[in-house]
Amino acid sequence: MGRWEPDARGRLAKAALALYAEHGYEQTTVAEIAKRAGLTERTFFRHYADKREVLFAGAGELEELFVRAVAGAPESAAPLDALTVGLDAVAEMFADRREFARRRQAVITANAELQERELIKLASMTAALTGTLRGRGVAEPTASLAAEAAVAVFKVTFERWIAPDEERTMQQLTRESLAELKAVTSVV
Amino acid sequence: MGRWEPDARGRLAKAALALYAEHGYEQTTVAEIAKRAGLTERTFFRHYADKREVLFAGAGELEELFVRAVAGAPESAAPLDALTVGLDAVAEMFADRREFARRRQAVITANAELQERELIKLASMTAALTGTLRGRGVAEPTASLAAEAAVAVFKVTFERWIAPDEERTMQQLTRESLAELKAVTSVV
Repeated sequence: MGRWEPDARGRLAKAALALYAEHGYEQTTVAEIAKRAGLTERTFFRHYADKREVLFAGAGELEELFVRAVAGAPESAAPLDALTVGLDAVAEMFADRREFARRRQAVITANAELQERELIKLASMTAALTGTLRGRGVAEPTASLAAEAAVAVFKVTFERWIAPDEERTMQQLTRESLAELKAVTSVV
Repeated sequence: MGRWEPDARGRLAKAALALYAEHGYEQTTVAEIAKRAGLTERTFFRHYADKREVLFAGAGELEELFVRAVAGAPESAAPLDALTVGLDAVAEMFADRREFARRRQAVITANAELQERELIKLASMTAALTGTLRGRGVAEPTASLAAEAAVAVFKVTFERWIAPDEERTMQQLTRESLAELKAVTSVV
């Protein structure tokens, strides 16, 4: 047991999601999560600050990846083209996590506090992307609008991607959402 | 004192904002707000559930107005045209409230819990607008993307409108933001 346990982090996340689905997020304790994963509470706390953190640990990674990809887009890329590079990187990161994402979403949808946390993470992502665009020399209000639009595309795409029976990749759905956004705004 | 007090609601809101600015939101009590307004606590609670409600009472009104305007747009209007009718109605509602909005924003920016509440209100608005577009026969993902885009325009426009020394009307800034959004998305 302990620090040499292989993939303890992944096992804890899987055990937590299973318990949240079975007994509800509120009712589940860290002790139960550790037990289900065959690990100790001590090991749990080496990987996660609390039971909520299990659901949001990926959000920081997601934001960082998104921002890094946008920052690294060709200098000549227009704002939404740079953001699209980021959206593609995000889609790649999620590629093999669809089932996890579906289960996670079900837990979040059932709990108002978790939904709030999700909104905060998305707002943080929007702010970070706005800052990244400004760093690329994009003026306001363009930077804010482009970042908001990209996060809207991500949100809507993500919801479609985790829908039951949806089999298209996140990248395909991202392209569709971008085309749809373009169609929607082109009539004004 | 009491129920016949003229504009008790407005006086309470003004007193509350002044106290939040002077002493901080957390430190201000309902008793102090009532006293500053020259009213009783009892009168306060006839108008607001608590001190947070003073800041968010307008959000319900805003959402209702926005939704009603979108629902009432000509049947032939494209999604973003219908949303623009809503944005214009919102701009009209805010027209004479710029100073209040500036003071309110300063309080919200200083408090994480209030920022979360603001995010929740915006998410609720997006969901309501998405539902309204669906009711107008707009399919998904167009309805969600259009609603997200309109709320993004509202957010960005609102921030610009309350900036120090900004004198353009919210309607002018809304037009600019819409044009900017169109320009941003047209390059994809």
